[in-house]
Amino acid sequence: MTGLEQLHDPNLRSFASDNYAGIHPDVLAALAVANGGHQVAYGEDVYTERLQDVMRAQFGTDVEVFPVFNGTGANVVALQACTERWEAVVCAATAHINVDECAAPERMAGLKLLTVPTPEGKLTPELVASVAIRKNDEHAAQAKVVSITQTTELGTAYSVDEIRAITSAAHDADMLVHVDGSRIANAVATLGVSLKEMLTDTGVDIMSFGGTKNGAMLAEAVVVLRPQAVHGMKFLRKSSMQLASKMRFVSVQLEALLTDDLFKRNALHANEMAARLAAAVRDIPGLTVPRPVQANAVFAILPREVSRRLMEDFRFYFWDEATGEVRWMCAWDTMPEDVDAFAAAIKAALS
Amino acid sequence: MTGLEQLHDPNLRSFASDNYAGIHPDVLAALAVANGGHQVAYGEDVYTERLQDVMRAQFGTDVEVFPVFNGTGANVVALQACTERWEAVVCAATAHINVDECAAPERMAGLKLLTVPTPEGKLTPELVASVAIRKNDEHAAQAKVVSITQTTELGTAYSVDEIRAITSAAHDADMLVHVDGSRIANAVATLGVSLKEMLTDTGVDIMSFGGTKNGAMLAEAVVVLRPQAVHGMKFLRKSSMQLASKMRFVSVQLEALLTDDLFKRNALHANEMAARLAAAVRDIPGLTVPRPVQANAVFAILPREVSRRLMEDFRFYFWDEATGEVRWMCAWDTMPEDVDAFAAAIKAALS
Amino acid sequence: MTGLEQLHDPNLRSFASDNYAGIHPDVLAALAVANGGHQVAYGEDVYTERLQDVMRAQFGTDVEVFPVFNGTGANVVALQACTERWEAVVCAATAHINVDECAAPERMAGLKLLTVPTPEGKLTPELVASVAIRKNDEHAAQAKVVSITQTTELGTAYSVDEIRAITSAAHDADMLVHVDGSRIANAVATLGVSLKEMLTDTGVDIMSFGGTKNGAMLAEAVVVLRPQAVHGMKFLRKSSMQLASKMRFVSVQLEALLTDDLFKRNALHANEMAARLAAAVRDIPGLTVPRPVQANAVFAILPREVSRRLMEDFRFYFWDEATGEVRWMCAWDTMPEDVDAFAAAIKAALS
Amino acid sequence: MTGLEQLHDPNLRSFASDNYAGIHPDVLAALAVANGGHQVAYGEDVYTERLQDVMRAQFGTDVEVFPVFNGTGANVVALQACTERWEAVVCAATAHINVDECAAPERMAGLKLLTVPTPEGKLTPELVASVAIRKNDEHAAQAKVVSITQTTELGTAYSVDEIRAITSAAHDADMLVHVDGSRIANAVATLGVSLKEMLTDTGVDIMSFGGTKNGAMLAEAVVVLRPQAVHGMKFLRKSSMQLASKMRFVSVQLEALLTDDLFKRNALHANEMAARLAAAVRDIPGLTVPRPVQANAVFAILPREVSRRLMEDFRFYFWDEATGEVRWMCAWDTMPEDVDAFAAAIKAALS
Repeated sequence: MTGLEQLHDPNLRSFASDNYAGIHPDVLAALAVANGGHQVAYGEDVYTERLQDVMRAQFGTDVEVFPVFNGTGANVVALQACTERWEAVVCAATAHINVDECAAPERMAGLKLLTVPTPEGKLTPELVASVAIRKNDEHAAQAKVVSITQTTELGTAYSVDEIRAITSAAHDADMLVHVDGSRIANAVATLGVSLKEMLTDTGVDIMSFGGTKNGAMLAEAVVVLRPQAVHGMKFLRKSSMQLASKMRFVSVQLEALLTDDLFKRNALHANEMAARLAAAVRDIPGLTVPRPVQANAVFAILPREVSRRLMEDFRFYFWDEATGEVRWMCAWDTMPEDVDAFAAAIKAALS
Repeated sequence: MTGLEQLHDPNLRSFASDNYAGIHPDVLAALAVANGGHQVAYGEDVYTERLQDVMRAQFGTDVEVFPVFNGTGANVVALQACTERWEAVVCAATAHINVDECAAPERMAGLKLLTVPTPEGKLTPELVASVAIRKNDEHAAQAKVVSITQTTELGTAYSVDEIRAITSAAHDADMLVHVDGSRIANAVATLGVSLKEMLTDTGVDIMSFGGTKNGAMLAEAVVVLRPQAVHGMKFLRKSSMQLASKMRFVSVQLEALLTDDLFKRNALHANEMAARLAAAVRDIPGLTVPRPVQANAVFAILPREVSRRLMEDFRFYFWDEATGEVRWMCAWDTMPEDVDAFAAAIKAALS
Repeated sequence: MTGLEQLHDPNLRSFASDNYAGIHPDVLAALAVANGGHQVAYGEDVYTERLQDVMRAQFGTDVEVFPVFNGTGANVVALQACTERWEAVVCAATAHINVDECAAPERMAGLKLLTVPTPEGKLTPELVASVAIRKNDEHAAQAKVVSITQTTELGTAYSVDEIRAITSAAHDADMLVHVDGSRIANAVATLGVSLKEMLTDTGVDIMSFGGTKNGAMLAEAVVVLRPQAVHGMKFLRKSSMQLASKMRFVSVQLEALLTDDLFKRNALHANEMAARLAAAVRDIPGLTVPRPVQANAVFAILPREVSRRLMEDFRFYFWDEATGEVRWMCAWDTMPEDVDAFAAAIKAALS
Repeated sequence: MTGLEQLHDPNLRSFASDNYAGIHPDVLAALAVANGGHQVAYGEDVYTERLQDVMRAQFGTDVEVFPVFNGTGANVVALQACTERWEAVVCAATAHINVDECAAPERMAGLKLLTVPTPEGKLTPELVASVAIRKNDEHAAQAKVVSITQTTELGTAYSVDEIRAITSAAHDADMLVHVDGSRIANAVATLGVSLKEMLTDTGVDIMSFGGTKNGAMLAEAVVVLRPQAVHGMKFLRKSSMQLASKMRFVSVQLEALLTDDLFKRNALHANEMAARLAAAVRDIPGLTVPRPVQANAVFAILPREVSRRLMEDFRFYFWDEATGEVRWMCAWDTMPEDVDAFAAAIKAALS
């Protein structure tokens, strides 16, 4: 047994980020299942092999899955697999790849991002067309892949039809579609459709599949939905520093999430907690909820000094300090009583 | 509880790689200690904070530790922190960064490696000087950092004096020293000195500290020994896709290894198993052990067809198929009876 | 003598680009002056040395000049000299580095561009502040340098006070200022101030100095105005593939332009031709000149089909095919009769 | 007329580098032919178009030519056109791309160079095979292109058969062949074969065609011999900062060199001067000529202090200061009396 002392209060939860949550017990248990003895390193183990089957059951028979370490890695590897050296990526100005990865796409892969402001963080074929211009003009980086985030950084979700419209227009323009699915489980939960219906059947080419925010310790993957559309995945994963030596322990986390719909249950719960929070605060005078609450995020606008006072007891972040907008995230382990206590505190602070 | 089925035999071990081994029970237990509740993401958690203290107890009071995902990531981040865009890295031709990272240093960081053939995988001040030439000549990539691997890819170890000679010469030439310590624990075990004596007191500037091969699931770190010598670590880790969101679970693995000398005990054991294997096979006719066995690797030369027959029962790799040299690795969980059975099989195959 | 046949009509000029013009006779003559005998390659020749003096006479005694091949190269080298690997560049959305260099800053230097829409192509301290945010937050690429284009891609010019306001705010925020001076001569001509007053005295740190559009054959340079602010120029120029072996022939072109104010005379002439064109067309019914004409570019909005008909006889480009905006450039060799004939044709086409 | 003063003695020549020489009069005259009036920028001019025909007459009807600024640029653009992001380049350890480009291939294109020591700077199929290993192993950068230098950095030349052996073996191994032809004219001259026989008919895929050392001011090109084997040339040239705006003046220089065999005459002359020098010094006691003299370079070993004394009057470089080896280069403008005077001085210094 370990002699390590527990330093934190395991009963304390915040609304700052779904990355603050820990490991779901089933995922932790899965690590023990995969442990013991020797397994071939770097992905030739039996758990990574089984993950292929698990993913095929979710997405359809053609997909290939490449476990990686984190979302930034998944995105940068996937986008390289879609592009030649001179090609570029269309994304929303609010996309995580644009604002929260310290320029990893540019620095590590030389990828230019062609960004466009969007309503609610969602691209449309028209918005894509507005920046995917100057085809074959060598002075312009050539738009080759559209990257959309599902659910978005603003807590909204693309409908199946909206995704299909984008992939259809992209393919017509000889472009590909990547989905940053750091919170893809929340999308499955909110839309009530399967991964196959949302992503494979709509023609998405490649995606970053997120496990970490959904209850894993550290497990993401690039899922290639149309293998004929991309190339070099295994070399790109390795040269992009995303190849785990003891991969069995990454793969088995993803498998645990996809077993008995844990993935979906965790997300449904987080989404419900966000809905509960939105419902509880929406009508408080002095506070507005400016965006649709479609997943596990609630955005609110309230006086900055009130937010600052609340932050002393409940950790969360300003989304835009200029406008006073804040973001409250719910996680797979957020409890109804956490929400209720927080809502009560907000109400008290605003009264 | 998880319903996942265990697919592998947890009692089967091979001699292919220390990366084939699983998680030490104390490390797995530590994950549970750090689990539960919310902790600030991206390294501001209490376990990562405590890891700073743990590392300072090992290395001395000035060090800073930056947990990352894997050894490739640790190396590429550390080398960037030592270099300007136009500067280069001196390393042994056999260095992992040169031959086993799919050009990650070149591709991700634009780093040229100035390689030099070595006896037994070890650089010397003279070998470094032979490639660190043309100072201030803009036509030549400027050698700025020497990267040595400890223990080396050939199973040998630099002595403390050998390290000091390299750092001293490097600093005199306005260069820095990086240690790829993917197997640093095996060096501590074989040399019988502390991390501080081996690395801090000899003047090493920065290192990649390996936990994964030593019994972690997935835990490496960049340890900055001379903070004044390097720059930009936190930005380089993030932009190099090596920043874990739930970092507490990486940090606590490293802490578990450094608690009650587990780190050293695991390595001592692996080293002893290699010594046992070498002793058992060294005198078998038709087999030679061409290199010193100083850590957890045994290199052997035997007829290729004999190796191929042995591989049917015991997984291991050719090191150099041209010469018939093979590499046998022992891990923290290799059992004496594993060694004895393997040695007996070798003897039988060669008789 | 060469037996080469002249293939083109040396009396035909268009309004498409100042890059369409040829070499000013004085520049061509200068090549012959520098020719003959041997000179040290790669910049240690006497003409490059004299260029340092020539530039110091223009900019002040501290500047250092690094001749390069083209504007893209000058920009990418200069921006690297201002930044660490993780730092970013603030620029107007219309900046040449953003839209016309096939992502060279991202691909070759890993530089993220933080772009902002502007009125008339000109940044302000407020616009810079709006994107140079999240200081010290490792998730965000760190804004380190502001790049402004003078004269801008929209034919406008920053006043000396406007430049000073930007450099002052930038330096206060620990940032640097780069000027893309592909058409810096046109700015000198339109503002009636010296290079020193416009750039050195306002605190600009580094600039791309353009000769090609001003009458050179192929001659640009990075001019470092504050050597203490930047680093690695000579290594960055070489590793960025911008070091000319026979540099004397690049340097002497720049010297020829700076001799007897040829530089300014060429630009004044081009600016005057643009003013003449703007004056001649401004009041034609069906045509508007939507932007100030401050340098050698005239932007106009007229019916697309009229433009297309005009293009059959006079080559020029749509600036924005969606709005029907076109760009007409004047060069050092544009003749008043070229302008008058073109204006007459426009008038006829629109009547 | 220019008022520029000539600063140098046009009658002084050295043996340091063929880059020290100036512009051949026919090339200078060609600039004037292409001057005057407007021509479409960025390569759509009539001289660049005619250069395609000129090159096809030399190489055969399938080639495509892409003028660039310098040899580093030509090499880095050409090698990118041959490789995916994770692929690598096999070259001699002495290759210019390995030792004299400040890591431009690594930094600008992320290309790992798999280097191998060679006799006389020349690769062989066997040497290539020794480093082009671990096919399909994602831990190893994948060798995709062999880059040979013709004539080599050591003054030697590959025979037609030697080139064919390399291309044949490379193609069999699914690799391509690039020729760094910075001194390709000297190879044509020494081998007495055409460009087509040497390069097209042997199956070379792509080459860097050098004009600068052969009498141009500044003119190199990537010549694509097998268009089906490479991709993205025009985008790679632009994003690699090698697209000249006034390209007519680069193209016409190359045309001038290829008109009336000027290219070959210049090289033949330079080669003859080297042969004359070698003959004159070969038998001087205390001096040895350790390598075959097959082009315009003479390597010699003599006492270092003698070399240093000679350098006071005749500029040249040590090739390897450790061994006392020096390199003497002859250029298109080296005169017999230059050679004779230099040889006499060497003889005097050694007596």
